[in-house]
Amino acid sequence: MNYRMLGYLLGLILSTEAGLLLAPTATALLYQESPLPFLITIAALLAIAVPLVLQRPKNTRIYAKEGFVCVALGWILLSAFGALPFVLSGAIPHYADAFFETVSGFTTTGATILSAVEGLPYGILFWRSFTHWIGGMGVLVFVLAVLPSAGSSSIHLMRAEVPGPTKGKLVPRMRQTALILYGIYVLLTAIQTAALCIAGLPFYDALVTSFGTAGTGGFALKNASIAGYANPTAEWIIAIFMFLFGINFNMYFFLLIRRFRDVLKSEELRAYFLLFGVAVAAIALNTAHLFSTAGDCIRTAFFQASSIMSTTGFSTVDYNVWPTFSKAILVLLMIIGSCAGSTAGGLKVSRCIIIGKNILREFRHVLHPRSVNVTRLDGEPLSDDTCRAASNYLALYLVLILLAFLLVSFGGFGLESDLTAVLACINNIGPGLGEVGPAGNFGGYSILSKVLLSFTMLFGRLEILPMMILFSPSTWRRR
Amino acid sequence: MNYRMLGYLLGLILSTEAGLLLAPTATALLYQESPLPFLITIAALLAIAVPLVLQRPKNTRIYAKEGFVCVALGWILLSAFGALPFVLSGAIPHYADAFFETVSGFTTTGATILSAVEGLPYGILFWRSFTHWIGGMGVLVFVLAVLPSAGSSSIHLMRAEVPGPTKGKLVPRMRQTALILYGIYVLLTAIQTAALCIAGLPFYDALVTSFGTAGTGGFALKNASIAGYANPTAEWIIAIFMFLFGINFNMYFFLLIRRFRDVLKSEELRAYFLLFGVAVAAIALNTAHLFSTAGDCIRTAFFQASSIMSTTGFSTVDYNVWPTFSKAILVLLMIIGSCAGSTAGGLKVSRCIIIGKNILREFRHVLHPRSVNVTRLDGEPLSDDTCRAASNYLALYLVLILLAFLLVSFGGFGLESDLTAVLACINNIGPGLGEVGPAGNFGGYSILSKVLLSFTMLFGRLEILPMMILFSPSTWRRR
Repeated sequence: MNYRMLGYLLGLILSTEAGLLLAPTATALLYQESPLPFLITIAALLAIAVPLVLQRPKNTRIYAKEGFVCVALGWILLSAFGALPFVLSGAIPHYADAFFETVSGFTTTGATILSAVEGLPYGILFWRSFTHWIGGMGVLVFVLAVLPSAGSSSIHLMRAEVPGPTKGKLVPRMRQTALILYGIYVLLTAIQTAALCIAGLPFYDALVTSFGTAGTGGFALKNASIAGYANPTAEWIIAIFMFLFGINFNMYFFLLIRRFRDVLKSEELRAYFLLFGVAVAAIALNTAHLFSTAGDCIRTAFFQASSIMSTTGFSTVDYNVWPTFSKAILVLLMIIGSCAGSTAGGLKVSRCIIIGKNILREFRHVLHPRSVNVTRLDGEPLSDDTCRAASNYLALYLVLILLAFLLVSFGGFGLESDLTAVLACINNIGPGLGEVGPAGNFGGYSILSKVLLSFTMLFGRLEILPMMILFSPSTWRRR
Repeated sequence: MNYRMLGYLLGLILSTEAGLLLAPTATALLYQESPLPFLITIAALLAIAVPLVLQRPKNTRIYAKEGFVCVALGWILLSAFGALPFVLSGAIPHYADAFFETVSGFTTTGATILSAVEGLPYGILFWRSFTHWIGGMGVLVFVLAVLPSAGSSSIHLMRAEVPGPTKGKLVPRMRQTALILYGIYVLLTAIQTAALCIAGLPFYDALVTSFGTAGTGGFALKNASIAGYANPTAEWIIAIFMFLFGINFNMYFFLLIRRFRDVLKSEELRAYFLLFGVAVAAIALNTAHLFSTAGDCIRTAFFQASSIMSTTGFSTVDYNVWPTFSKAILVLLMIIGSCAGSTAGGLKVSRCIIIGKNILREFRHVLHPRSVNVTRLDGEPLSDDTCRAASNYLALYLVLILLAFLLVSFGGFGLESDLTAVLACINNIGPGLGEVGPAGNFGGYSILSKVLLSFTMLFGRLEILPMMILFSPSTWRRR
């Protein structure tokens, strides 16, 4: 373990957070609120980060293990410090609650312990949603994009942070890849903000809501989430952008450089569109009796399916009252999630495709034991490692869900609430069903459950392995 | 596809069922009930089976595909005919209900559509539980045991019917293996029947309840299941035997031939004991406040954990009223199930162990990509095929659960009931939670849902592959 390099990288991450906190500080000043909660946090971050950054090690080489540990520790520390403004401002008095809220922000989950957000300071709500935007694309990716290359092994950092079984870098240099991704991200966010302004939302609301959409997070500025605006145009805009942010960012890059064929041949993209279309149609038909006009029905079905499949978690309706069939569709979408290489959570569509192909291959193997089968994705053969990793990821994911469910059910609110709470957290969605449905919140859980669910969100956002490796004793054993 | 051999084997299976129906016929005569429902069914079976059996084909060779199709079709036909006595006697007026009940019997699920069983004819209740006993060890295994060898390829039939990632035959000859397994099965059933008689149960009740225990089925003779006897000694006997029937029968064979070392080195057996012990302790502590004496509490926890883990489904209490934590433990036990090579359902402990080892291997691979890792079970190396098959099985199992849940939720009873109904069916347990809990039944579901759940039980009992292959169009395509 290259401890010096680990310290240096963590220093970079924390000073980046200090820099990012300037945005809510400015917001607070603009709205004539006290900037102190942010300034104190910035001071605390710099006090720890500066000494770490100044000691740049000679040996900058890191391996997969350090990459995983760095990302996992980095995310925990980001959340631990990011929670301070909530406590210092009095918006969330208890630290455990603030930690939950911040983890939920960075992991783009959007699960909240707050029963009401209207009336909280502008700076605080800005920060709350800004964490979504930062966490969506990844803090390490940001560090790689804005700072000089963090050594030749930055691929290990990026691989540990960017979700899904992706195919690697867009361009040979890591830093350029990160810059391109963030460029697309900023552009899409800006377009959405402009569109929401045109639809009639105030600039602050448009920007902060776009943060929540872009990161596929789901923290809203209204107690009733997006329903609070009662603005069908804005609902359509947000619904469409949630769907767009669930697409692999590589696709936008391909569109920009006019490699349309690469977009068209993407099996994941086609499956994403298909699954989404079927889900919207099924929900619309199943909930038709609850609406007076077809337009309302389709818009709501589109919005909710998009919100859950992109793992955002905004809502325009309390789908707790929907028929069980529609709720079952939402649970399925929760688990599948969106495309790899997007800001969304869940298992990822491409991983589900690979798992499906593994199953078909197993069939062929049972029936024709001696035949040779190659699994292909987008026409290219997949390595056995990739195929096996997808199946093992599913198994690990399931084990974690069941374990977390078991622990949360201890003093929980019944099977439906507890199970969907865990699903909503590990898939980084936000609201679940029952007690933690769109009209409820996570405030009722015990401190222990909140901490457990916070880590469940981190496990989900970082796709399990980094957190497992961080907490594995063998990682810290000296050889 | 060797159609002639397929027809011959199906003929054997159906004539075996005709033979087995003599037992409930005798019971009906003994209790002076009409034997007609059974005699008509026997006549119908023989009318179809005899012509098939008489045309013994010259080419008796079958391959994996025929083996799977034969087992899948055989089980569907067995259930289709086995349902007739229920309809003909008027005990279950609707055929769809009778089919559900019979599938539930043969697959050793024990899910019932009947709200009351007391007062039904003795012969009918005997047949209902006898299907458990037949289905537990397997009909094909029975055919192999009692009839002359069905060709040299009988290994394909046995492999398709005996659950779990087992290691194959006990002795070189297939028929002897089948005979040994049935010998142990009969012996254990006889011991349990004797024990229950000594505990005070009438002989009929002792025998029929032992059928339900041995097959890990769960159909009982009382409306309140085993609670109806209010006999703590009998509860202990049944609880212990449910646990025993969840053990791989190879272990009993090893005990008989004094190969104690093979028993001791079984990782599955140790994990089974450990999991069970932890579950009983956790449930006992969590439900202690519901009981007046420690004895009652421990006996109930032991009974319920044993009943669910062995996938039997008898109950002595309505665990729907238990705290969510205990219910979550039961859900976990439902999924894990018992040992491979037992009469129980679920994922099987050994498959869970292999999946766990796959996950650990994945870790090592990520951290040290060039190291060579071999997965071992009971000290012996597992093939990559076995490891991969276990992970793919889990994936397929999960896909089926989610699909079945989605379909059942259409006009179902809410997430908890519908999800546990599917879990209870695919794992061949019987009761779930909520509406289908131990105090409820499956009678409220629509005909479509009942048929769907019937097939879910068959998928679970035959471990998915045979049913998938039966319904795959490519199986029936001519080359």
